[in-house]
Amino acid sequence: MAKKRVVVSLGHDALGYTTLEQWDAVKETAKALADLVEADYQLAITHSNGPQVSMIHKAMTELRRIYPDYTAAPMCVCSAMSQGYVGYDIQNSLKAELISRGVSKGVSTILTQVTVDPYDDAFYDPQKVIGRHMTAEEAIMEERKGNFVKEDPGRGFRRVVAAPRPIHIVELPAIKALLDVDQVVIACGGGGIPVIEQKHTLKGASAVIEKDAIAAKLACDIAADELIILTGVDQVQTGFGTPEAKGIEKMDVAQAKAYIEAGEFEAGTMLPKIEAAIDFLEKNKEGSVLITSIAATHEALKGRTGTVITA
Amino acid sequence: MAKKRVVVSLGHDALGYTTLEQWDAVKETAKALADLVEADYQLAITHSNGPQVSMIHKAMTELRRIYPDYTAAPMCVCSAMSQGYVGYDIQNSLKAELISRGVSKGVSTILTQVTVDPYDDAFYDPQKVIGRHMTAEEAIMEERKGNFVKEDPGRGFRRVVAAPRPIHIVELPAIKALLDVDQVVIACGGGGIPVIEQKHTLKGASAVIEKDAIAAKLACDIAADELIILTGVDQVQTGFGTPEAKGIEKMDVAQAKAYIEAGEFEAGTMLPKIEAAIDFLEKNKEGSVLITSIAATHEALKGRTGTVITA
Repeated sequence: MAKKRVVVSLGHDALGYTTLEQWDAVKETAKALADLVEADYQLAITHSNGPQVSMIHKAMTELRRIYPDYTAAPMCVCSAMSQGYVGYDIQNSLKAELISRGVSKGVSTILTQVTVDPYDDAFYDPQKVIGRHMTAEEAIMEERKGNFVKEDPGRGFRRVVAAPRPIHIVELPAIKALLDVDQVVIACGGGGIPVIEQKHTLKGASAVIEKDAIAAKLACDIAADELIILTGVDQVQTGFGTPEAKGIEKMDVAQAKAYIEAGEFEAGTMLPKIEAAIDFLEKNKEGSVLITSIAATHEALKGRTGTVITA
Repeated sequence: MAKKRVVVSLGHDALGYTTLEQWDAVKETAKALADLVEADYQLAITHSNGPQVSMIHKAMTELRRIYPDYTAAPMCVCSAMSQGYVGYDIQNSLKAELISRGVSKGVSTILTQVTVDPYDDAFYDPQKVIGRHMTAEEAIMEERKGNFVKEDPGRGFRRVVAAPRPIHIVELPAIKALLDVDQVVIACGGGGIPVIEQKHTLKGASAVIEKDAIAAKLACDIAADELIILTGVDQVQTGFGTPEAKGIEKMDVAQAKAYIEAGEFEAGTMLPKIEAAIDFLEKNKEGSVLITSIAATHEALKGRTGTVITA
C-alpha cells in the first residue's frame, strides 16, 4: 500500500521565540514528527516564522543603524533567512530523533517562493504586524518609505504588512521530486517568500503569507491524503475560554462553517486553521484534517484526542 | 548523450557585500549560469558566504546588545540564515534569466549540513576571520567565552574560527534526487553548515568550510564531469601581480603541483582553488576543471580564455 502523504503545519509553539528557545522547542517538535514518520506517513512540513522573521528584521534594521554602509534588508530577504534558520533546526533535530529511533531517512529543506496577486485585497488593508515598536517620529519616516504602520495604543507604532493569499508555489516540482524519493521535506517556511510576477522576474513583496493558507495550498498541490495542523491546543473547542468550553472530536465542513457563522473561532488564531481545513477538504473530498497539539500528537494518532475534520 | 554534470563554485565577486550589492551582482552571475545551462550542462551550484555570514553575525550580535532578551546566534545558525539569503537571490535571479531566454527549468536551494572532524588540525589553529572589529576589552570577553580572537594591527581584534576539511555532505541524497530530475541545484552554500557527529546528533560547529574544498567534495560525490570555479580573474596566472604575469591556458595536475611548490599561488585566494582542482582530478582522472571569471564565462566556454586543468 502506498504511504499516506501528509502536510504538517507547525505553529509558534513548535519553535519558540529566540534561538535558544527554538533549539529546545524543535526537539519536542521532532518527537511528534518522528511519530508521524513511524506511523508510515510521508511528510511535507511547513512552519510559521512570525517571531523568527521579526527577530531577523529587527537585527538587520539595527545593523543598518550602527553600520550605515549596509543597505536595508527587505522583508523577502528576511523571510529567506528565516527559512534557512528554521529549516536547519527542524531538519537537524528531526534527523537526530529519527536516528535515535533507528530510522534512516533523509530530511531536507527546500527554499520556497510563493507568488501572490499584487491586486489581492490584503495589499489595500495590511493587517499583519511585524518588527519592533517605533516612536511616532519613526512611524512617520516609515510611512514616507511607502510602508504601512499601525498604532499599538500606549506602546507606540508597529509596521504592518499584507497577508495575501498564495497563488503558486514556485519550487513545487522540487518538493514533489523529493517526496517521490521518500524524503521528509520542509518547504514553504513562514508561508513561503512572497513574490509578485513582473514580466520575467519574481519581485519580493512586502507581505507575509499565512502559514495555514500555504499548508492547505501545498496539501492540494501534492495531492495529500491528510493535513495535520499542530497548534497550542489538543482539540478545537466550542466556547473556547469560557466555562462551557467543549472539545470537538469530529466535524464535517458544513458543521465547521456553521461554527464559523456562530463566531466560535477566534480570528488570527483558530479561524485561519479551520478556513485552511475547509479549503483543503473542498478540493479533496476524500481527505481529512487533524488539528491537535505537539504534545498530544502521539495520542491523537491513536484517535484519543485531537479534532478530525472531513468533507 | 547524457548531459555533462558540473559543479560551479561562486566566489565573493558573484555576490557582493551588502543586500543591494548582492541583488545587482547575482544578476550578472545569473547570466553566466544561464550560459552554462544553455550549453546543456547540468548544474550544482555552491557559493561563498564570507561577507553574508559576517553581516548576519554582526546583525545578530547587535540585536542581542540592544534587546538582551534575545540569545546569541551561534555561527551554525548564521550560516543557515546565509544559505537562505544567498540561495534565494541566486535561484530568483537565475530563474528570471532563464525565463527571459525562453528556458523553462527548475532551480532550487537545498539547505546543507556538512560534517567535519572535531580533531581536524584547523580547530587547534583557527585562521578564518569573521565578524566585526573588537576593542581589546571585547576581545578578552570573547576569549572568555571560549572563542578565538586575532589582532588586526592598528584596527583592533577580530574573531577567528577554524576552517576544517569537509567529511560528509548530510543532504547529498536530496541533492542527487533533484539533479536526477534535471533541476539546477544550489547546495552547500558557504561551504555548508559545519556540524560534528555526537552520538545521534549533529552539533553545529564554530567553523567555516572553505567553499572551494566543498565544491571539490560535491563534484566527487555527484560524479561530476567538470568543476567550474568562477572567481575574480579570467585566467590563473604565473607571476600574478608582477610585470611578468602570464595567463595559464592549460595545465595538468603535475604542473599545478610544481607551480604550488614554486609559490606561484597566493594562500587564501588562488591556492585553495588549485588545491580543490587537484583534489577533484586525483579522484576523477577523466574530469576537468575550469577556472575563470563570471564576465569571461561565455568566452571561456568557447575556449577563448580561462584556465583548464586536467589530470
